[in-house]
Amino acid sequence: MDVMREANRREVAGEDIIHMEVGQPATPAPRAARERVVQAMAEHNLGYTLSLGLPELRERIAAYLEARYGVDVGPERIVVTAGSSAGFVLAFLAVLDHGDSFGLPSPGYPCYRQILKALGFRPHLIETSGAGRWMPTVADVEALGASGAAGLLLASPNNPTGTMTRGARLKELAKTCARQGLWLISDEIYHGLEYEAAAETALAYSDSAIVVNSFSKYFSMTGWRVGWLVVPEALTRTIERLAQNLYIAPPTVSQVAALGAFDGIDELEEIKSRYARNRSLLLNELPPAGLSNVLPADGAFYLYADVRDLTDDSAAFAQAMLREIGVATTPGMDFDPERGRSYLRLSYAGAEREMREAARRIAAWLKTR
Amino acid sequence: MDVMREANRREVAGEDIIHMEVGQPATPAPRAARERVVQAMAEHNLGYTLSLGLPELRERIAAYLEARYGVDVGPERIVVTAGSSAGFVLAFLAVLDHGDSFGLPSPGYPCYRQILKALGFRPHLIETSGAGRWMPTVADVEALGASGAAGLLLASPNNPTGTMTRGARLKELAKTCARQGLWLISDEIYHGLEYEAAAETALAYSDSAIVVNSFSKYFSMTGWRVGWLVVPEALTRTIERLAQNLYIAPPTVSQVAALGAFDGIDELEEIKSRYARNRSLLLNELPPAGLSNVLPADGAFYLYADVRDLTDDSAAFAQAMLREIGVATTPGMDFDPERGRSYLRLSYAGAEREMREAARRIAAWLKTR
Repeated sequence: MDVMREANRREVAGEDIIHMEVGQPATPAPRAARERVVQAMAEHNLGYTLSLGLPELRERIAAYLEARYGVDVGPERIVVTAGSSAGFVLAFLAVLDHGDSFGLPSPGYPCYRQILKALGFRPHLIETSGAGRWMPTVADVEALGASGAAGLLLASPNNPTGTMTRGARLKELAKTCARQGLWLISDEIYHGLEYEAAAETALAYSDSAIVVNSFSKYFSMTGWRVGWLVVPEALTRTIERLAQNLYIAPPTVSQVAALGAFDGIDELEEIKSRYARNRSLLLNELPPAGLSNVLPADGAFYLYADVRDLTDDSAAFAQAMLREIGVATTPGMDFDPERGRSYLRLSYAGAEREMREAARRIAAWLKTR
Repeated sequence: MDVMREANRREVAGEDIIHMEVGQPATPAPRAARERVVQAMAEHNLGYTLSLGLPELRERIAAYLEARYGVDVGPERIVVTAGSSAGFVLAFLAVLDHGDSFGLPSPGYPCYRQILKALGFRPHLIETSGAGRWMPTVADVEALGASGAAGLLLASPNNPTGTMTRGARLKELAKTCARQGLWLISDEIYHGLEYEAAAETALAYSDSAIVVNSFSKYFSMTGWRVGWLVVPEALTRTIERLAQNLYIAPPTVSQVAALGAFDGIDELEEIKSRYARNRSLLLNELPPAGLSNVLPADGAFYLYADVRDLTDDSAAFAQAMLREIGVATTPGMDFDPERGRSYLRLSYAGAEREMREAARRIAAWLKTR
């Protein structure tokens, strides 16, 4: 957040800043979503929907999941939420009691631990490694179970690393959670943005997993605050009550837009192919420029660079990079309080031309250091 | 919720249902708000805003408060929220510790107690009386302080009763909270909808009050999920962090609409004058029809009828009214678990023609009972 604020300040002051610190697409919602909203402005009064969301949208999401993954969960297990933020709050409140601890692979999205703490729960950090594609191992999950934790959060593709877990390994993790009596919350908000192989849903290997998803990333609708949960049938009534009391309902206009977004897949695939080009460009250009320890990320729009050869304080390094060449990045400490001092997250959600220019500036800058 | 579901079921089945159970306007957002959204669909990418909301909207809200109440709080004390639901969550989490109790006048909005419980706090119900316009007394607040509670929630106009507290009495309640070391959270979401005298803000009598407000009711924007808090300066940083982690930011499109809504005041005053006509009609027609114990409500769009002469089970009474004459109302138990058995809430947010027809049906029905 500090880098973001400083980057915006410099931009307002007239500097030419390249934003590789942001966690959101530069594009608006797809045209079909926006057209649906324009139409709704004339035709709907947009009062509250049901707490679980517009029935039509729940059905559309269930159909999308079936088409995409071949899983048939049915609309009754879909809960439309005010973004994945609400999804995490609802999932945690539904399965945890005060003081419970919950396993979070580290590095990971910092709001997981902050949400848990704000609600009276305890984050239990699990150190992962680049060699293991930043995913927990079966042994990690067994140790988590033995520690008395209530569950595991798994994010694939992961933020900040962009790495994924799939196939036999995902299956093994899901089965280990089940064996250890751990809730599995699967953060799938970067699904749709993968470049080597398709992301797999935890639902393929677990009936009791809670899946968190969102229209923010692949659907390019961050500010709309609309997402969804897939929950086991036994939890729907609990989640409905929580949603009714804590949110009343997700924003109606955003649900209407989300319905339209499913008609904008061509446009979204175009955006994704831009991310793919940006990713290739950076993976080609950065290592020779001196940012050599970048794991080829499988998905999302992030690279997680190991900068230990360049600095032992990635926050100061990011500040210097912003100050000296106008490239904003995110220091790893936001995602991994200790080891993050040696890492930098670079987002490639921006324009191709900007990514090219960023690579050029970084190369020239590293030569002088 | 049961009555609402049953009313919708009957309506879908072809019955002519009059909705006096709903807590929302039948009108869409004002035209100026919707026009602003149409324009934004072409011009903005609607990414995340800052967690505290669009700076322009925070300024507009501060100017509105100054014009309306003569209080100068400044934009830095305004927090734009995802509806008042988010406002309550943020306010409670900012000032309470696990297990703390918080004073809630009863009858009152049921989500207060549900939100408190979901977050690990304890509702402390304060029985109020119709004779005291359903507001707590100074003695009640002193007893609350003595009980060790952390604060008091005050809603004026109150849901379900529509009654208000003003002037010397509001001042005395605010001062008593200060003297007792109690946080005062003032729910002002029905401000703007008052028919005898203007509602007063707690900010007029307290610098430390937390005010919860919303674009849902007066601004006719329930489904948009956008509201605001006014918080003491010392709490803004805490609330900003909580908002960032739990919500990221309020929906951008709704914030854009809210900005436009301030240009739709003429239209909103028209809607309000319809509520005023509905209120007069019902206050004239219902007592001779047999619903005689209705306190002339000061604001909102609710009447709270004492039906103890007609039933000792307002839920069964409401079900019978819905089944036999197609008028949906809300039993008082939703707002006051025990005494609510003798009360019914009637919303007059609907069309004038419907209110007239409801009064006619109720009169004919009560004659046959």
